[in-house]
Amino acid sequence: MTNDNPARETLARLRASIDNIDSAIVHMLAERFRCTEAVGELKAVNELPPHDPERESAQANRLRVLAGQAGLDPDFAERLHRIVVEEAVRNHRAIATRRKQNP
Amino acid sequence: MTNDNPARETLARLRASIDNIDSAIVHMLAERFRCTEAVGELKAVNELPPHDPERESAQANRLRVLAGQAGLDPDFAERLHRIVVEEAVRNHRAIATRRKQNP
Repeated sequence: MTNDNPARETLARLRASIDNIDSAIVHMLAERFRCTEAVGELKAVNELPPHDPERESAQANRLRVLAGQAGLDPDFAERLHRIVVEEAVRNHRAIATRRKQNP
Repeated sequence: MTNDNPARETLARLRASIDNIDSAIVHMLAERFRCTEAVGELKAVNELPPHDPERESAQANRLRVLAGQAGLDPDFAERLHRIVVEEAVRNHRAIATRRKQNP
């Protein structure tokens, strides 16, 4: 590495920011799944479908706009969002199944 | 839906929280990619490899612990993290290529 120390210091500083941001995202995701778990319980009790394509499409569109404004690739934001929603829907199905087995 | 209004109100309230959390995550991710873009520039200038398996493995382990503490599935956290890191590495490669073409 040329200019070894200054570059390494800058890299270490950027990585510390990335680690802080990742910690924040993990905690945000944990809180998001607490909310979707409550949604899953509510849907199971009221026998609502675990999947709501209209809501998911509206969410995706809103996030694409937000991502664009924040300088994040909207396609990437939508791809990640889809993975998170799929995980939440999988959890909803598991909650509904448990409820049918132990009403 | 039984008990129609209370359940719908609860659902709307939970969804508003989910939307707020998603907005926060989008902004966190935008900031994370600003940091990794700076890392990419720094690596390109100093001709460092775009990929750092040791750092990525340490990050993944740290996030798995954090996820477990926060009640988030560590496997899911690691899976998402890998997707985000892969996107950052792809961007690093693009920065290095641009730099070689226009030094």
